Amino acid sequence: MIIILKKEISENIARIKKMFANKKQVLVHQNQVAVVGATATELPREIQVAAEQIIEKTPAAIQSSRLFHPEDIVIKTPHAHISSDSLTIMAGPCSVENRDHIFKMAAVAKQGGATVLRGGAFKPRTSPYSFQGLGEEGLKYLRAAADQNGMDVITEVMDDEHVPLVAEYTDIFQIGARNMQNFSLLKEVGKTKIPVALKRGMSATIDDLLNAAEYIAAGGNQQIMLIERGIRTFDSKYTRNTFDVAAIPVLQQLTPYPIIADPSHAVGRWDLVTPMAAAGIAAGAAGLIVEIHDDPEHAFSDGPQALKPATYLAMTRQAQAIHQLMAE
Amino acid sequence: MIIILKKEISENIARIKKMFANKKQVLVHQNQVAVVGATATELPREIQVAAEQIIEKTPAAIQSSRLFHPEDIVIKTPHAHISSDSLTIMAGPCSVENRDHIFKMAAVAKQGGATVLRGGAFKPRTSPYSFQGLGEEGLKYLRAAADQNGMDVITEVMDDEHVPLVAEYTDIFQIGARNMQNFSLLKEVGKTKIPVALKRGMSATIDDLLNAAEYIAAGGNQQIMLIERGIRTFDSKYTRNTFDVAAIPVLQQLTPYPIIADPSHAVGRWDLVTPMAAAGIAAGAAGLIVEIHDDPEHAFSDGPQALKPATYLAMTRQAQAIHQLMAE
Amino acid sequence: MIIILKKEISENIARIKKMFANKKQVLVHQNQVAVVGATATELPREIQVAAEQIIEKTPAAIQSSRLFHPEDIVIKTPHAHISSDSLTIMAGPCSVENRDHIFKMAAVAKQGGATVLRGGAFKPRTSPYSFQGLGEEGLKYLRAAADQNGMDVITEVMDDEHVPLVAEYTDIFQIGARNMQNFSLLKEVGKTKIPVALKRGMSATIDDLLNAAEYIAAGGNQQIMLIERGIRTFDSKYTRNTFDVAAIPVLQQLTPYPIIADPSHAVGRWDLVTPMAAAGIAAGAAGLIVEIHDDPEHAFSDGPQALKPATYLAMTRQAQAIHQLMAE
Amino acid sequence: MIIILKKEISENIARIKKMFANKKQVLVHQNQVAVVGATATELPREIQVAAEQIIEKTPAAIQSSRLFHPEDIVIKTPHAHISSDSLTIMAGPCSVENRDHIFKMAAVAKQGGATVLRGGAFKPRTSPYSFQGLGEEGLKYLRAAADQNGMDVITEVMDDEHVPLVAEYTDIFQIGARNMQNFSLLKEVGKTKIPVALKRGMSATIDDLLNAAEYIAAGGNQQIMLIERGIRTFDSKYTRNTFDVAAIPVLQQLTPYPIIADPSHAVGRWDLVTPMAAAGIAAGAAGLIVEIHDDPEHAFSDGPQALKPATYLAMTRQAQAIHQLMAE
Repeated sequence: MIIILKKEISENIARIKKMFANKKQVLVHQNQVAVVGATATELPREIQVAAEQIIEKTPAAIQSSRLFHPEDIVIKTPHAHISSDSLTIMAGPCSVENRDHIFKMAAVAKQGGATVLRGGAFKPRTSPYSFQGLGEEGLKYLRAAADQNGMDVITEVMDDEHVPLVAEYTDIFQIGARNMQNFSLLKEVGKTKIPVALKRGMSATIDDLLNAAEYIAAGGNQQIMLIERGIRTFDSKYTRNTFDVAAIPVLQQLTPYPIIADPSHAVGRWDLVTPMAAAGIAAGAAGLIVEIHDDPEHAFSDGPQALKPATYLAMTRQAQAIHQLMAE
Repeated sequence: MIIILKKEISENIARIKKMFANKKQVLVHQNQVAVVGATATELPREIQVAAEQIIEKTPAAIQSSRLFHPEDIVIKTPHAHISSDSLTIMAGPCSVENRDHIFKMAAVAKQGGATVLRGGAFKPRTSPYSFQGLGEEGLKYLRAAADQNGMDVITEVMDDEHVPLVAEYTDIFQIGARNMQNFSLLKEVGKTKIPVALKRGMSATIDDLLNAAEYIAAGGNQQIMLIERGIRTFDSKYTRNTFDVAAIPVLQQLTPYPIIADPSHAVGRWDLVTPMAAAGIAAGAAGLIVEIHDDPEHAFSDGPQALKPATYLAMTRQAQAIHQLMAE
Repeated sequence: MIIILKKEISENIARIKKMFANKKQVLVHQNQVAVVGATATELPREIQVAAEQIIEKTPAAIQSSRLFHPEDIVIKTPHAHISSDSLTIMAGPCSVENRDHIFKMAAVAKQGGATVLRGGAFKPRTSPYSFQGLGEEGLKYLRAAADQNGMDVITEVMDDEHVPLVAEYTDIFQIGARNMQNFSLLKEVGKTKIPVALKRGMSATIDDLLNAAEYIAAGGNQQIMLIERGIRTFDSKYTRNTFDVAAIPVLQQLTPYPIIADPSHAVGRWDLVTPMAAAGIAAGAAGLIVEIHDDPEHAFSDGPQALKPATYLAMTRQAQAIHQLMAE
Repeated sequence: MIIILKKEISENIARIKKMFANKKQVLVHQNQVAVVGATATELPREIQVAAEQIIEKTPAAIQSSRLFHPEDIVIKTPHAHISSDSLTIMAGPCSVENRDHIFKMAAVAKQGGATVLRGGAFKPRTSPYSFQGLGEEGLKYLRAAADQNGMDVITEVMDDEHVPLVAEYTDIFQIGARNMQNFSLLKEVGKTKIPVALKRGMSATIDDLLNAAEYIAAGGNQQIMLIERGIRTFDSKYTRNTFDVAAIPVLQQLTPYPIIADPSHAVGRWDLVTPMAAAGIAAGAAGLIVEIHDDPEHAFSDGPQALKPATYLAMTRQAQAIHQLMAE
């Protein structure tokens, strides 16, 4: 149940908290008060009267719902301001491969207007025999490359034990699609104050994604953005996944978190990244996360979906133009 | 096998035809000659030498492939010119409901820049107890409404027996998603000279769609356009289907036919039609087919996905602006 | 709404029919009366009192529901009795290839206990350049082969125009998965008295399948059986489709029609047909439809999924043993 | 590449190891030697001659392949012997709810022939506000209940940090579907000697599942069993997931690990568990894992899919009869 209070707000919040103490979870955001698993009939008349509205049918992911948090949540990092009123670009190679390479790629990313540098140091690979990332060494290079270009860092954290280590180097935790329901990890990043970019799992429904976000929010961290990166369907011959572009406006209606499009993973082919980035922005995405590489054929991972610098720069110009057009 | 001839083209075409007469199917487009199911080793040296290239690994849908037909196919109807260098809008109600209503909707469609009027007279409904369409009476109203507004007609034909009847009234046959593999119907429209808009089946792969188009082409009719209208996936809570926006550029690479986006069926909700139309055009669609209704709550079918006139007009303005931006 | 009458049944049926004449569709089965799209409040008090139960929340496929038709529907053909209390085997080659071959295969089918001979004369092939079947000639051979072995015939009818022709030769119409929602065809077979075996479309939900069956029933033909033949999912590397074995008991609960398992199409690999046939029967199927061939490598179609005679005979022995065990 | 040696086996293994030391990963099982990412041309003539066969096209999950490990792997725990030549039953409540309840359920499980007691102490719940399990207290009760009945324990471990704790109480680690690609967790259980039951992720392909198993094997632990528990498809109205029964024989061909069916999660409805258990065994499963509860309506989690004791006992009798029939 969500109670939207219209008068004596702080007093009524206190009353509700007291009433349900040790019984139900009470969550507060401004004049919205959520009581998990409770119904209006449990409320005394005085609170019912003080409410503008009592919403009984709420989604399970209550804090991640606009019913509870109507205004957009804006993610702020030193160099980025992630929200639907601007276009944030996050770019970089799939993996941090070595010091020189990430510095080179950071400069390219920056040139295209990216304010956040991406790069994987811990890589979740399908096969145990594939390159697993440089680990902490990779994090150091990534941090240094971002700093030199006045950018922020986004990088994946793969398990709860690594949260403190990754926290030393990153501005944004990325949770990968395969870990979207790794609840231990979600709880751990939920205890920090660091923004979290949560990727939709490849067969996660919209509700699954919001419930996963709720694990982070339930820990006290609502600096969350959601990434649409393609879902698994019956046809993977021409694209690795199916880019669910409609999820972007659907999520924007349901949740206050900014929605980011990841065209690289959605299609898995560099030559489709530009039209998919365009589609994502036309559908209302607050940002893009894309993979770039100067020599995709020799990339340590995911080469086929990496944009070469020139293609990346053209893509970002088009993306900015569409974003501006949509804003008019 | 596709043989791309570089010299003595007409003589060599004649030789190839003679050689495979009564054995294999030989298809010719300019200097491309396809021999279905044959290999290069079956060719005499003189033809091998006359070929610029011999492509042995060809898709089954050979005539629908750019390997065989490299240039865009342009669909020409009295008032429309459907190709990727312009934006064609097809709009109208889901069903032709009565004479007045279709005339009213035609005027709205026209006002938004539509050159083709859509409307169903034979409706493929999931339940036999639902409204099945006005039949020929509906076709008459549709034709008259289009004519009065200087527009063309697109309408669904549901079975091979109805092809001659529908042909009397329409400029474009629409083949519905449920009939995408109704091969008898595909063969029948393939024998006509009337353009065909083939909708992707809800679980059709890209290859299935191209093979279905090939049935039409094999009959001699290559005035084909393909419609992406959403596919069936594991999540249908918030959208009826999943709009596979990446199919648009994928199909453009593979086939010469123009690709049309149907945002109405893709999502099944009017409030998402505008962003999905925008996404479809940003991804490169040559046109849109959308459902409109002045009183969606009382529509005979598919009311929830119909745009009201004002929303439709705003949508088309945005669509045209994006199309123009993409063309720059 | 379904009204289950408990007294003055024929009088009340007459009253209800009169009441809704020319307004709503009234369907009657014994003491069950369905009024499509009506609610209990529309009934006079006397009928409400005469009802044992009034079910307002009914599925759209009302005649195909056990709410309306509680008892099993048994399909009777000259040599078969298809219902869940016995095990019917239908076997034969994918395509009728020539006279000798179908006679040979009929003898094998018979030997394994099959009472129905399958074989395609009109083949729905993905590509227009593939073998399309022998047409009426194939039907003649199929009929003769069945007659010689004291068997019945099941064969696919692909369009409404062919219904009368196929009706001359077959005991059971088969509607293919790709035609499951070819409503013109469903209506046409619904007008006959010939049993219909309706295959589930590759992305049809359970409700879609029942609504398709309802088109046949609405025409007056309830001699329907439903075939589970695998659905399309995200993994088709090792099996062509995903055999939805749970659909068998689900459908048995929902509908009075017998449910047949088609392990051949479900997996597309002969070496998995035996365990899938076993699984289907263990789950409660009333019958099997399987493809057999003495020389699968040279089969005109679907060779990889055909059982050789010896494997077929072993499979049917195991199937019968499991069916007997389940019946105990 | 897999080299199957036929002579001087130990000498040649030593040579191969030396040759690729610090370059490629060399894995040995009897006379099979796998060199990850290498090709036959890299081998000296003498080794080529000593090989019965050199397989160059190998799956990425090389140790989990029958090409490398042809014989069945048998899982041995104090009271169970899990392999395809017998039928192992694992049963218990979804969650350990309290001491008395798990003791009661253990006795029921045992009565139905179960040798392994299941029960969750750490629960991966979709919502953070749902019951998350009793933690270590639950593990203690579970262990005690199993011991009293002469049974073994299987219980889920949700993150790498908990591996040592859970190891103190369990005989088999269960990795849940949502964690199938939690690579940190897979690596951690791979370092132990405790058997691991790996559940297929809800959208995991067969290859994804084998690659996940390979992470465990790569750590040195091949005491692995794989659980088919249903996949996510387009239809979830009547069953929670789609039980992919064909995965059972497919996996048995590909991998030496025993395959277990989980009918409870596959369908999510108790009334379908019995036919799905029957189908799974008919398809060749080496065991079942099922949820039981004496009062499903008040179960802390997953009540709708729990079998009541009497139904469970009838199910196991039928399952044993089918298994015996299949073995004959």
